[in-house]
Amino acid sequence: MLATKHQNTIDAAVKANHERTFYSHYPEHPKAYGEEAHAKGVQSYQQLLNKPFKQLLQTGETGWTGEEVSPYTQEVLGVTYPSFAVDDLVKRAGEATHAWSRTSVPERAGVLTETLERIKDYFFDIANATMHTTGQSFMMSFQASGPHANDRALEAIATGYHELQRYPPELEWEKPMGKISIRLRKTFRAIPKGVGVVIGCSTFPVWNTLPGVYANLITGNPVIVKPHPRAILPIAIAVSAIQQVLQENGHDPLLCQLAADSSEDLIAKKLAEHPDVKLIDYTGSSAFGNYVESLPGKTVFTEKAGVNSVLLDSVKDLDAVIQNLAFSVSLYSGQMCTAPQNFFIPEAGIATAAGQVSFNDVVQRFRDAIVALANNPKMGAGTLGALQNENTLLRAQEAQQLGGKVVLAGAAVNNEEFSKARVFAPTIIEVSSADTNIYEKELFGPIVLIVKTKDTAHTIQLAKQMAQKHGAITCAAYTTDPATKEKIADEMNSVFTPVSFNLTGFIWVNQHAAFSDFHVSGGNPAGNASFTNQEFIIKRFVWVGNRELIE
Amino acid sequence: MLATKHQNTIDAAVKANHERTFYSHYPEHPKAYGEEAHAKGVQSYQQLLNKPFKQLLQTGETGWTGEEVSPYTQEVLGVTYPSFAVDDLVKRAGEATHAWSRTSVPERAGVLTETLERIKDYFFDIANATMHTTGQSFMMSFQASGPHANDRALEAIATGYHELQRYPPELEWEKPMGKISIRLRKTFRAIPKGVGVVIGCSTFPVWNTLPGVYANLITGNPVIVKPHPRAILPIAIAVSAIQQVLQENGHDPLLCQLAADSSEDLIAKKLAEHPDVKLIDYTGSSAFGNYVESLPGKTVFTEKAGVNSVLLDSVKDLDAVIQNLAFSVSLYSGQMCTAPQNFFIPEAGIATAAGQVSFNDVVQRFRDAIVALANNPKMGAGTLGALQNENTLLRAQEAQQLGGKVVLAGAAVNNEEFSKARVFAPTIIEVSSADTNIYEKELFGPIVLIVKTKDTAHTIQLAKQMAQKHGAITCAAYTTDPATKEKIADEMNSVFTPVSFNLTGFIWVNQHAAFSDFHVSGGNPAGNASFTNQEFIIKRFVWVGNRELIE
Repeated sequence: MLATKHQNTIDAAVKANHERTFYSHYPEHPKAYGEEAHAKGVQSYQQLLNKPFKQLLQTGETGWTGEEVSPYTQEVLGVTYPSFAVDDLVKRAGEATHAWSRTSVPERAGVLTETLERIKDYFFDIANATMHTTGQSFMMSFQASGPHANDRALEAIATGYHELQRYPPELEWEKPMGKISIRLRKTFRAIPKGVGVVIGCSTFPVWNTLPGVYANLITGNPVIVKPHPRAILPIAIAVSAIQQVLQENGHDPLLCQLAADSSEDLIAKKLAEHPDVKLIDYTGSSAFGNYVESLPGKTVFTEKAGVNSVLLDSVKDLDAVIQNLAFSVSLYSGQMCTAPQNFFIPEAGIATAAGQVSFNDVVQRFRDAIVALANNPKMGAGTLGALQNENTLLRAQEAQQLGGKVVLAGAAVNNEEFSKARVFAPTIIEVSSADTNIYEKELFGPIVLIVKTKDTAHTIQLAKQMAQKHGAITCAAYTTDPATKEKIADEMNSVFTPVSFNLTGFIWVNQHAAFSDFHVSGGNPAGNASFTNQEFIIKRFVWVGNRELIE
Repeated sequence: MLATKHQNTIDAAVKANHERTFYSHYPEHPKAYGEEAHAKGVQSYQQLLNKPFKQLLQTGETGWTGEEVSPYTQEVLGVTYPSFAVDDLVKRAGEATHAWSRTSVPERAGVLTETLERIKDYFFDIANATMHTTGQSFMMSFQASGPHANDRALEAIATGYHELQRYPPELEWEKPMGKISIRLRKTFRAIPKGVGVVIGCSTFPVWNTLPGVYANLITGNPVIVKPHPRAILPIAIAVSAIQQVLQENGHDPLLCQLAADSSEDLIAKKLAEHPDVKLIDYTGSSAFGNYVESLPGKTVFTEKAGVNSVLLDSVKDLDAVIQNLAFSVSLYSGQMCTAPQNFFIPEAGIATAAGQVSFNDVVQRFRDAIVALANNPKMGAGTLGALQNENTLLRAQEAQQLGGKVVLAGAAVNNEEFSKARVFAPTIIEVSSADTNIYEKELFGPIVLIVKTKDTAHTIQLAKQMAQKHGAITCAAYTTDPATKEKIADEMNSVFTPVSFNLTGFIWVNQHAAFSDFHVSGGNPAGNASFTNQEFIIKRFVWVGNRELIE
């Protein structure tokens, strides 16, 4: 029984979910997986290129599609994926439901944990595929699409395992009525809502997809994975691993199907609007996210655009802060939903342990740190990664025309390993607090805005307003004053935005740890769902209680 | 500390919520409250009549309103209630939030449990007020608006108490990084979503209102109670009791406000659409329920119309079954969201321990039992209660024109105590399975439809279709065959409808017990929420986690 095999893993994950102290089941360092794993992964990735991806256990395709291009080499990957009629995908998903929804929760959890173990065997294939579809560095590709994604998937399994066994499946209810009593046998069933669709994004094709996939599967729902047409391969490998394990253990592999499409024939809307599709997970633009949220009769989980703020009030060691922030904005060229964008700095500057530093000096030191990082031959290219697509490059190239004062003009950066890599250093623009038309928009990519404020109270007011109106997934704040800290926490929390205080060193605001940090609060326009709070799980099924008289 | 005073009560309720075996904190029998309580309650109720209701701790009213009429005496109650501008109500609610949301969860739970104890002191006042606004019998008025409502409120408090303390409020997170480690202090806060509005109905003004009120309050949200203009007094007494306790314990009484309106100037839409109102609980028509569900940016909990089915397949003792069902349809003249309406009987009749009973004989015996109950001098009037309003009377009077065959024509019934009581015995109509246009509608009130089906498979198909398309809160089924039982459970559960099997004696499908039965599954068109599952609580707040570097 896989339930028995993985019981310790699942129990530990349930415990971690509750305690929220540090926990990880999949080590994040590549070296933990053996010295040869990296080289082997490059090889097996290369063997996937320029041919149809036939590892899926799906049949009945209507054609083959594929248009991925490496942001590092500008070459097409040449992998094609089977495409299917939407009605066929949904029908097969529906057919897979009955037996799965009757599989016990421990068995489901065991099988699903086994699928994660199988995905682990492909971590390095997935890492290379992620690198050459998203433009992430190898290290980020490995961590985000490998151990971090698997940990978040295990978190979803564990949350489901706990919630689905919250009530006794059967019990006797006895109501005393004076001389007699009424006895009923009651049963509680968690009925799955229906077919799920998970719509992925181009920058985090695995990390943002697996939580929805596993949340659907643990709660008894089949799932259709609709990746971004430019980032299919990483999740295709994961789906094929899931299908293998399902089949080997006597379950229908079509519980988890890949639904690849092309930019010329997008199927996300058709899938979302299909009457049998009841659950939709979506990561991407606010426009499409708001559309899926508005669909009647669907349970929808979104992560959309937001504008993340950094509030600078006072610091102990300005250099340490500046280094930390320069890395945060440079990491994967700001193509993270958790990357900071708007830096609010009071016009009087910032108090430090070494005395007051003027506004202009703070900006100058921030600029210098970003330039130094981008041009550091050992660090620069690896930190920046590559821009996933041409639109992000165009946005970065045109950032100087946004308005405001150009503090730093971004420019192409050389990547020694990949001479054609699409790398562009950050642009820094200084704007006035009145320029809300500039800084209220998410400028996805390597663009940093410095907003000069009257004082920290003004900073807080603006950052709160941004989060409330335009959404925010993260917020970083630096202050040495306890009252100011409390004020910032209260105000930002009131618009459902978490705050990270005084981060320096090897921890950055961009990072959310599985089993501890909720990713997206679900309370502001940046998204209506959270990895992984209870809502993320329990909205996928309905408790139904039956009763029978015991005579 | 009220938290300490009520700790045992809250702990027992949390335990009951999980175990779902029989539990009740407030005894349902009036005699448990003393021999004189009933008579005193009549007196204190009468002292409320024909004057302004001044027990509320709300000021700044723009006028006084009141239009309640007793369904038993046809006399106006003459009680008037202060009316307020919507903006004022919402503003005051907002002002009450800050301190309350910072009150600890155990303290909130203690204060709220104390409010229930205070409401208990008014159980008999509330019972008389319920009787003379809803038309319920005294016994139902007492139980539904008194102990049963309080138990469901305590259930909501306990669910909140458990969920809000799910994560440690503060913890140290330490990530090992080889030779060093990263340490963060993390805090988790449950941030209330905002002002809540609970919109009540005319038939269960307390029972359907208190769960939303207490779910909002325990999660830190202020609440505005908007009763039906024809059933204000019962909940006005409860709200004034809540306000008293809040004030006595140093909390803002305006955390819970009454917002009475008149049928000529309804304020529910204005309240619901106010931008600061974030939470809406609603019980009533599907049209208005669908409207509130469609409002963007609101978290909405609804109980709407549905058509509840009875599936008759086979029975041991037909008489016992018929007696049980006759009582179920007669209780409060079918003015319950849990009352059965559509009785599906196979054309070949029903197998019983005493042999097959033909379709016509089953119908005849059902008819006879209903007639006998309605005309029983000791039971009839007390079971039927009175019709709450003229529309329900009109619907009952016109039921013979629905189409189909009139098995029993309803008629006025005499109530010995109240000669002017609006009492009307049930009408029974037999229809063909093809007459979906007749039986797919909720016919609220004393109207019973018999649907002749081909066989039990046909019965299941139709009952499932009704629940899926038109909603169902309950379903009763009678079968002695285990396979048929499993089939009925599977099919009805698949459309998120709970089934009660083979009820006879002193337990009826209409009853849902606090701490054990979920009331409404939330999965079909009869409503999107459930008393009280976790969703009913956790959707009212957002988990937000802050982090700070420990150096």
